[in-house]
Parts: sequence; C-alpha cells; structure tokens
Amino acid sequence: MNVIVLLSGGMDSSTALAWSLHEGHTVVGCLSFDYGSKHNDTEYHYATLIAEHFGVPIRRAPLDFIAQTFKSDLLKSGGDIPESTYDTESMKRTVVPFRNGIMLSIAAGYAESVGAQGVVLANHFGDHAIYPDCRVAFIDPMRAAIKAGTDTQIELLSPFASIDKSEIARIGARLGVPFVKTYSCYKGGPKHCGACGTCRERKQAFAVSGISDPTEYTE
Amino acid sequence: MNVIVLLSGGMDSSTALAWSLHEGHTVVGCLSFDYGSKHNDTEYHYATLIAEHFGVPIRRAPLDFIAQTFKSDLLKSGGDIPESTYDTESMKRTVVPFRNGIMLSIAAGYAESVGAQGVVLANHFGDHAIYPDCRVAFIDPMRAAIKAGTDTQIELLSPFASIDKSEIARIGARLGVPFVKTYSCYKGGPKHCGACGTCRERKQAFAVSGISDPTEYTE
Repeated sequence: MNVIVLLSGGMDSSTALAWSLHEGHTVVGCLSFDYGSKHNDTEYHYATLIAEHFGVPIRRAPLDFIAQTFKSDLLKSGGDIPESTYDTESMKRTVVPFRNGIMLSIAAGYAESVGAQGVVLANHFGDHAIYPDCRVAFIDPMRAAIKAGTDTQIELLSPFASIDKSEIARIGARLGVPFVKTYSCYKGGPKHCGACGTCRERKQAFAVSGISDPTEYTE
Repeated sequence: MNVIVLLSGGMDSSTALAWSLHEGHTVVGCLSFDYGSKHNDTEYHYATLIAEHFGVPIRRAPLDFIAQTFKSDLLKSGGDIPESTYDTESMKRTVVPFRNGIMLSIAAGYAESVGAQGVVLANHFGDHAIYPDCRVAFIDPMRAAIKAGTDTQIELLSPFASIDKSEIARIGARLGVPFVKTYSCYKGGPKHCGACGTCRERKQAFAVSGISDPTEYTE
C-alpha cells in the first residue's frame, strides 16, 4: 500500500517508518508539522536525518494558526516545560488540544491528494494516560471518520496501538532504526534535557527494553 | 454553551451562526479558513460582513500546506471550475480532500484552547452526494473522535444535518440572516457567476423555499 507516515523525528514515529517499509508499504512521503512548539525545529532536523537514512521524501506543514492561538506549555507561546513524569497533572499543560486529530486530518487529505491509500500514526498504548487524542476511544472513531470522509477510503494504520514504548524500542532496534538520529525532548535544546516527561519516558523505554541508549542527556 | 462557528460566509454557515445565537449559545468566535481556493478571499470578505452584522468576532486560519500540495479544481493551483450542477462527475474535481475533517479538527482544538464547549458546522443533507466529508457516515464518527480526543469533550453541533439548503434558506430568512451579505460562488469573482454548482444550488434553494433571492448573478 502507498502510505504517508507522520514523522516527528522521535523514536516512535521513526520506528513506524521502519515498520512501514518492513511491511512492504511504499512510503510516498513523511509528513512533519510546525505548530509552534519549543521543539518543532529540533525534531524536524532529526526527522530529516531519519527520512534520509531510510531514503524517503519528507515535507513539513506549517500550522501558524495553532502557534498563534492554541494554549499549551509545549508551545513557544506557553510557559516552561514541566520537569516531571508523564503521569502528573502538570504534564497536562503540555497537551496541544486535538493535535493528533489535526495532524491526521491533514495527512488524510494529503494522502488522497498524492495517491496514497494509508496514513501511519505511531500512537502507542503508553500514551493514553494524559493524551485524549492517543486513546483507542479517539483512534477508532477517527479511523472511521477518515475512511468515510475520503473518496478513496483512506486507511489509518496504527501498528503500535496495543504496545508500549519499550516494545517499540525493541522493534526499532530489530529494524535498524538509528536511535541516535531521533529526538524526543520537549525543550527543543541541542541535547536531550533528560528531565522532561518525554526524556524520562525515552530513558525508561531503553532501560526496560534492554536496548542500549545512545542518547546524550544534559542530566 | 460557548461555541465556535465555522463561518465560510455562505448562506448555510451564516444561518448556522444565526441559529447558534437564537438557541442561546454564546459565539466565542467564528472561524474561517484560507486553504488557497479561488473563492477564499471573496468569501472571507462576506464572512466578516456577516460576523459584523451579528456582532461576533471572527478569525481566519491560513492553511498554506493545503494550498501548496492538495489537488482540487477548487484551488488556485487547480483547473477551471466546472459549470454544471452538483450531481455530475465533473463537480467531483472541486472536492478538497477531507476539508471538513481538517477544518473541524482545527476548530475543535481551537475551541478547547479558548474555553468553548462546542463547534458548529453547517453541513446539510443535500451535500452528501459528492462530498464524502459531509455525509452522516463521516459526521457521526468525527463527532465521537472530537469528543473522545479532547480533554473537555468538545461537542460537534450540526443542526442542519437532516435538512436541505432550501429549508436552511427558510430558517435563515426567519432568523434575519442578510443573505445579500453572503457569498457562495466557487469562482470567487466580484459577482456570483450563476453557472457553477454552488451558484446553481444557491439559486435553487431560494426558488424552492420561496424566499426572495437578493443575489446579483452574472448569468
């Protein structure tokens, strides 16, 4: 199947790209978004390294309206990134409202425009706690909406919906994802901070999976 | 309920704005989009007239990525607008893939960011023939996805889902919508062309409903 892969440059979406190719899909393009987050520019740099590694094209969609009007500490317009694990109330402040819905919708329309039949999203089981737009209760109706709402019945593929990030690390390692070329930190600095929720989750995924962590953390 | 109204400046969404106010909702804002269509600038001019008439704020969200990469004759990048009724194959060329999904997703995230609880869409029963993203089969799962995918469980209100455009004209007339300040034409010229699918549909809605048509058509 011809697919569009949502590629942020993190370890999950980079593994989703490797998975797509391994499954025999043709990756027509990867799609990244600039919605004004503190880490969008850094993650896009890494996303281009990953796309280049796997020899697939990548495009970036600007979403200035989100940058200018949405409320979230993940955005440049918001407050500081909390330094805590994902399961705390403070991390809720980093939610960008309906981000996955927005990215999936644009990817679905783009897929239909460029003749792809599927869109690949790397949402995973561990995401669900604070992100409503990662839960199966969102993904399932969104899949139905995309299929019914497109002329060519675009498919939403979410291969990691029932596994967690440590299992993704194992799959990525098996499929040759160069994790050193991936980026997770919400602060967007030159090095991973090691303290924000995504950095903690990244560290833990490597630790639990037993995969060597090539990341250089500030702390 | 505090709501965001998707306002294109056409007669349907203008009536949806009047309906929202009539129902006692507080219209926190109207949202228009610029996705590079031939008629976006003209319809936005009319949308501002309607928002001003009803005394509610309006914002415009640019969607440059759609303008640059999507394929549709509705876009400036596409071919000529076909001059025929909606139910012909040629009108299919004016579909912008998953447009309603994209606009609703952005509106849902925006609603959550500005403290609104609902998003109002003026899709109607007569739309379904060629537009997959107007059908109930799309609207229902999209409604579920928006509700499940937002922290505050944003509601999608689609008051005209089971009526047609002539009935909308009747409702609009009853609620005092100044139809002369609305715009439908896909060609985006200073006057309604009278020949494209939306102009034909507009003419017919007035004719069938028995409401006087204040529109000046080129032909």
